[in-house]
Amino acid sequence: MTEFFKGIPKISYEGPESRNEFAFRHYDPDALVMGKRMEDHLRFAVAYWHSFAYEGGDPFGGRTFDRPWFGDGMEKAKMKADAAFDMFDILGAPFFCFHDADVRPEGANFAENKRNLEEIVEYFAQKMESSKTKLLWGTANLFGHRRFMAGSATNPDPDVFAWSAATIKTCMDATIRLGGENYVLWGGREGYETLLNTDLGKEADQAARMLEMVVDYKHKTGWQGTILIEPKPQEPTKHQYDFDVGTVYGFLRRYGLETEVKMNIEQGHAILAGHSFEHELAMAASLGILGSIDMNRNDYQSGWDTDQFPNAPHEVALAYYEILKAGGFTTGGTNFDARIRRQSLDPEDLILAHVGAMDMCARGLKAAAAMLADGRLEQLRAERYADWDRSENAAMLRQGDLAAIEARVLSEDINPEPRSGRQERLENLVSTFV
Amino acid sequence: MTEFFKGIPKISYEGPESRNEFAFRHYDPDALVMGKRMEDHLRFAVAYWHSFAYEGGDPFGGRTFDRPWFGDGMEKAKMKADAAFDMFDILGAPFFCFHDADVRPEGANFAENKRNLEEIVEYFAQKMESSKTKLLWGTANLFGHRRFMAGSATNPDPDVFAWSAATIKTCMDATIRLGGENYVLWGGREGYETLLNTDLGKEADQAARMLEMVVDYKHKTGWQGTILIEPKPQEPTKHQYDFDVGTVYGFLRRYGLETEVKMNIEQGHAILAGHSFEHELAMAASLGILGSIDMNRNDYQSGWDTDQFPNAPHEVALAYYEILKAGGFTTGGTNFDARIRRQSLDPEDLILAHVGAMDMCARGLKAAAAMLADGRLEQLRAERYADWDRSENAAMLRQGDLAAIEARVLSEDINPEPRSGRQERLENLVSTFV
Amino acid sequence: MTEFFKGIPKISYEGPESRNEFAFRHYDPDALVMGKRMEDHLRFAVAYWHSFAYEGGDPFGGRTFDRPWFGDGMEKAKMKADAAFDMFDILGAPFFCFHDADVRPEGANFAENKRNLEEIVEYFAQKMESSKTKLLWGTANLFGHRRFMAGSATNPDPDVFAWSAATIKTCMDATIRLGGENYVLWGGREGYETLLNTDLGKEADQAARMLEMVVDYKHKTGWQGTILIEPKPQEPTKHQYDFDVGTVYGFLRRYGLETEVKMNIEQGHAILAGHSFEHELAMAASLGILGSIDMNRNDYQSGWDTDQFPNAPHEVALAYYEILKAGGFTTGGTNFDARIRRQSLDPEDLILAHVGAMDMCARGLKAAAAMLADGRLEQLRAERYADWDRSENAAMLRQGDLAAIEARVLSEDINPEPRSGRQERLENLVSTFV
Amino acid sequence: MTEFFKGIPKISYEGPESRNEFAFRHYDPDALVMGKRMEDHLRFAVAYWHSFAYEGGDPFGGRTFDRPWFGDGMEKAKMKADAAFDMFDILGAPFFCFHDADVRPEGANFAENKRNLEEIVEYFAQKMESSKTKLLWGTANLFGHRRFMAGSATNPDPDVFAWSAATIKTCMDATIRLGGENYVLWGGREGYETLLNTDLGKEADQAARMLEMVVDYKHKTGWQGTILIEPKPQEPTKHQYDFDVGTVYGFLRRYGLETEVKMNIEQGHAILAGHSFEHELAMAASLGILGSIDMNRNDYQSGWDTDQFPNAPHEVALAYYEILKAGGFTTGGTNFDARIRRQSLDPEDLILAHVGAMDMCARGLKAAAAMLADGRLEQLRAERYADWDRSENAAMLRQGDLAAIEARVLSEDINPEPRSGRQERLENLVSTFV
Repeated sequence: MTEFFKGIPKISYEGPESRNEFAFRHYDPDALVMGKRMEDHLRFAVAYWHSFAYEGGDPFGGRTFDRPWFGDGMEKAKMKADAAFDMFDILGAPFFCFHDADVRPEGANFAENKRNLEEIVEYFAQKMESSKTKLLWGTANLFGHRRFMAGSATNPDPDVFAWSAATIKTCMDATIRLGGENYVLWGGREGYETLLNTDLGKEADQAARMLEMVVDYKHKTGWQGTILIEPKPQEPTKHQYDFDVGTVYGFLRRYGLETEVKMNIEQGHAILAGHSFEHELAMAASLGILGSIDMNRNDYQSGWDTDQFPNAPHEVALAYYEILKAGGFTTGGTNFDARIRRQSLDPEDLILAHVGAMDMCARGLKAAAAMLADGRLEQLRAERYADWDRSENAAMLRQGDLAAIEARVLSEDINPEPRSGRQERLENLVSTFV
Repeated sequence: MTEFFKGIPKISYEGPESRNEFAFRHYDPDALVMGKRMEDHLRFAVAYWHSFAYEGGDPFGGRTFDRPWFGDGMEKAKMKADAAFDMFDILGAPFFCFHDADVRPEGANFAENKRNLEEIVEYFAQKMESSKTKLLWGTANLFGHRRFMAGSATNPDPDVFAWSAATIKTCMDATIRLGGENYVLWGGREGYETLLNTDLGKEADQAARMLEMVVDYKHKTGWQGTILIEPKPQEPTKHQYDFDVGTVYGFLRRYGLETEVKMNIEQGHAILAGHSFEHELAMAASLGILGSIDMNRNDYQSGWDTDQFPNAPHEVALAYYEILKAGGFTTGGTNFDARIRRQSLDPEDLILAHVGAMDMCARGLKAAAAMLADGRLEQLRAERYADWDRSENAAMLRQGDLAAIEARVLSEDINPEPRSGRQERLENLVSTFV
Repeated sequence: MTEFFKGIPKISYEGPESRNEFAFRHYDPDALVMGKRMEDHLRFAVAYWHSFAYEGGDPFGGRTFDRPWFGDGMEKAKMKADAAFDMFDILGAPFFCFHDADVRPEGANFAENKRNLEEIVEYFAQKMESSKTKLLWGTANLFGHRRFMAGSATNPDPDVFAWSAATIKTCMDATIRLGGENYVLWGGREGYETLLNTDLGKEADQAARMLEMVVDYKHKTGWQGTILIEPKPQEPTKHQYDFDVGTVYGFLRRYGLETEVKMNIEQGHAILAGHSFEHELAMAASLGILGSIDMNRNDYQSGWDTDQFPNAPHEVALAYYEILKAGGFTTGGTNFDARIRRQSLDPEDLILAHVGAMDMCARGLKAAAAMLADGRLEQLRAERYADWDRSENAAMLRQGDLAAIEARVLSEDINPEPRSGRQERLENLVSTFV
Repeated sequence: MTEFFKGIPKISYEGPESRNEFAFRHYDPDALVMGKRMEDHLRFAVAYWHSFAYEGGDPFGGRTFDRPWFGDGMEKAKMKADAAFDMFDILGAPFFCFHDADVRPEGANFAENKRNLEEIVEYFAQKMESSKTKLLWGTANLFGHRRFMAGSATNPDPDVFAWSAATIKTCMDATIRLGGENYVLWGGREGYETLLNTDLGKEADQAARMLEMVVDYKHKTGWQGTILIEPKPQEPTKHQYDFDVGTVYGFLRRYGLETEVKMNIEQGHAILAGHSFEHELAMAASLGILGSIDMNRNDYQSGWDTDQFPNAPHEVALAYYEILKAGGFTTGGTNFDARIRRQSLDPEDLILAHVGAMDMCARGLKAAAAMLADGRLEQLRAERYADWDRSENAAMLRQGDLAAIEARVLSEDINPEPRSGRQERLENLVSTFV
């Protein structure tokens, strides 16, 4: 045990009545929900970057946190890893996720970056032998360093494309080495600051080419994990190409990759794109590309990505409702892509933020499962479309043309009368479970 | 000439120094821009609904305008058409656009609607014999009547689907009869108010089926016009399926319609979707689906579709720059999907709003043409990507894999140094032309 | 009992386990919360306009609802009132609120409007003799009719100012006649569409003059109710002068009215102004001008005022927490300024929307009371500021100057070390009560 | 001359036809506009922090710029000052503005900060002896260092209040020493991250107390400059107390400071608050508190403060129109609170961004002056309110009451007919000058 979390107990389930801050009130890993352990449903992951690499800065101020592992060099990187695995253990987190740049020191060139990553990956691997915590996904940070300022795969400079490809390979290798179940691409700089210096067509082709090579590398290595794209509409760039699920789907279709890649959907990114979280989840499910989630919340009064821990019970419930309806996670899970506020300085803040969020998700999962078990919501939805099951209606979707339908409307004098959409009743129904 | 516009002169070009409100200062239809008449570049259309059917209402108040043609019945509809063609003539508008519901009286059933539409279309046809004004596009209003409250093609009630299909056929027939060059679909109710009562998968299939039948009808009739979809992210619905260009492209790809359908892009809708107008135009151009534009402006401080006439010179210039770069309009044009404010009560307001907007567009076109002629903007853009032309770089986009690239990065110690994106210099360059 | 609600039972409390849609699960009027009846805490009011005058229209479509009382004339107005009082009774609503224009037929001139209002007010008075439902507040609709298109008090036309003053008098008279406890001013058109035709200084003076006369009339009549302003930042106008609580406070101070007028705060308006609901409540409380609330919710993905019924447990709890901390309502209450969606056609939708909302508020109130009783939240807040109680610190707020403080910082080498803001822990604490 | 800008010529006016990037096309300092030199109208200032201290970072990536003066220590600080004064000279900038933290090295305690500031201020003073560039305003950076994370004046920790007071004194001293004409307070951390840990009342009192001491120090020292508050609604905090002009005015009134303090209004902050820039300027002018401007632009598609250089001719023109109508600047000026994009790496980018912005402002000023000279806009505005000059109307604003007005409406049967607001005609008029 590192000094850092000394005195903080391992968190366990004590039930809803507990007043102990350092206990779960809803998350009971072994409790069965719809016949499956809660832990296996939720598949919680801690995000390495927010919890261990974020220093508390924002655009108007620098570091506020004081962590013994801040600084350069491999010793600091290992100290950081020690603290991280301590925290995974305290929380009983079944998974974690990482970027290369947040786990290893920055080297002077690619070769050094690669060596540094390999060294820290071996350190992780060794720690994971005695830890319950597994790797949900790995990814490459292709946005932080100044070389990526104009994009990684979509950079006008082919050398940056090459650097990025090489880096992705090392991160996929790391993910495979550590038994990761998914590999994520978030294109934080794949977009533009001004259209005036940008060639959309070229950049799309570059992005597609990189993705093809990622898919190809997956197949060549025989790795069975899932490739995930994480949509976000903007920030840091003015426009990010992977705007939302619908846009990414179009991109995948355009380049014939729609069966190879799934979505990692983040609440905050959905909000920034003008959607609800459940919308993006339902869209992805309907397109067959729902993969994993980045659970957090965006402040509805802030126009940027606030990456806060979730606290809205009804929203979390509706999110897991879409996930359960889609069959639940396979390789995906619930990654807390959330960070404590820059004023939350204490080790306890870091732990308790996760405890609260895990509880909020557990509550949402239970509510979602109860709604599904109750069945009224799905029954009412099905009834609304029931007339499409009648043969003359179903036929319209398969055959005929506008003229034939016009003839039928005229001959039968079809004159539809609207029926209530019952929104408030459905919202009341949801409220009874939240 | 109707009474309504009596006393308002026919607008003609008087040049930039004119102080006459009732004159064009920039729009000179016969002046050549890049070797083509300005009128043939811009292809202005007046939107029938805003100019003649909008009554001045908003969600907090009703009719403010006082028009002799407001009211029910065919006589009023013809009086409205008379005023409309007077206005087309005053403005020298080469085109107009219409919805069925705004040109004909609402009937008691579909048959009556069809008869009413046919009667008014013949009236239009007769007027068009002596008018210079042609039809840019027709469309069906499948959102105003209560029967469409839960969608048209995507309605849970198949009778509404049937009604909508039949109505689209009558509107396509009207468009063809009047020599229209495009047919537009704007899915104002194709979306949802609450995900709780909605089946995204079913509704997408319904929408696609309708679109297939529209394309099919185009081919069956031999009509050579263009089918256009107009994206909008929301409003009136909470979520509209044709969210933006990227999303619609994905939908078209999914159902194999991407070569059959193009985009009608509106400035205000782009803004509501979190994009700039030029972004949506450039996206559509890069995807090969740029068709036509609805020129207007959205108030950047309002969260709804304000449909105002354009007044931002640099934004209009950047829009036409994308259009010219894409080769200019073919069947498309510049439709003013804009309405005078509800306090702009006078006939003069209606005329002058269009005069100002036509001038603003002419100014934008001239600035865009000058930027293209100048060539520096495109030269700087090309230079930024020039390294991709080197053979070893171009090769990365065609062959090889992550491992090969990694090997090259290692062996050549590729370590890219960023280069200035020059945004402010490019913005300065644009400003010299606006 | 009117036909309209026939078959719908009177709603009563059945407890959290009830699966009966037509029952309260949380709202138990007589249950004591902090020693006061729940009904007396919440003071629910039904908004006449949304529930009985809204026809289901939106900017893209007209009436969807089918109500027997829609139409002109006094008979329809009375039929509407009959239905309204039926609904008040079904819900057990202790209060209602109304605008003049929504309860009486529009007359041809002011005299006729006045007579119509007086007639319907007497009809209300008669019904109220046998009803438990009282008037929370009355108001004048000075935004719907075209005469108000450029404002009421702030209109450039002094005749509109006069008309508005006269109308407000009739509405205050009606409020007094019916025993109303508050009078509300919402300046839906007090703002501008374009600054180009607006004189901010003149319009502010006009608004202030009207408000002075309203306050004066209150005192002259001896009425003991509260004058309330309802802030909203925009919509229908581009800019509404009563932007938010902070802005209105400045206006009141400028004209010396800050002790005469309080705020009626609406959730949806707070959201449109870039605030949370609890922010606006806390602001008003801290300024001593918290009066009453319009409870609803705004869709966070829509940029306009959606006026939906509340469904977010934690947000409602935080709102009542601020209200309870401020001492609870005196003359104010919880008015549901919310309307059913335009697809919610059935009488049951209207009733159940209110049932769900009343339950959501009751839940919020109970959670808020439990948080206060628990006391940890306030204790932690107080501790954060505790150092200000030390005498040398308290003194800084009363005396001395920059130079003296600088001298002390130098001599004592004051070098503050930040302390955790504990946001996530506080959010977890709130979650345990919601 | 430092190495950094070597090779960049001094910028001079060459007229609109110049194609030289390194020349002014509109800004001709000595040209007379409304009888005053353009330089004396516009009073341009360079913002030290953006141009010399910003490193190119954003929330997703660090430093991109490579400046010889980056780093710690007094030598670097002086090298930075050398480059700054070189740039002032190249641009012919009449003014600059600075924060303490951006001009001096951070010390280990307050005493060291004070000494460092005094040293660099003397270095500035010496440079200013031979420079034409004067100080528009000074300010204290009370938001960057971690000690300010929970506010400066409004911090729950009184030691931070004391530190802040002492720091403000040193910055006011520096401003006075350098002949500054204004002193600015921007409360970047005066607000909250969560209402849950915040006492609004206490924090408002603290803020007011600090402001009183600032005003008091001005008077004690006999300095004749202007104290300015810069409103911003949020960012970095979730809510910033100085939300907008209306809110700050209320705060000033509450504490009796409205005659002592004026506003420094920033375009980007106006946008974030849901206003146009011209709105905030007109508001401040109507309240008598218009002081100075921070000229920049916010990307309308980004939800955070982008601080870009202005490029919208009509918006800049409308801003200067409000300023000219209010009588122009006295101690205030046009500070470019704008920064080059993080991809704009080159020294030329820094210079040319300012050149373009100065030209854009010059263009706006000339357009604004031409609109005023033309007079039609003000004439049309005045006509709209002209009926208020009639005695019976003017009287309503001075005497009488609701009952008297009602009597007059009844007796005269006042029934106002709306008149056109002419928005589009006014917008056309503006366009002829832009």
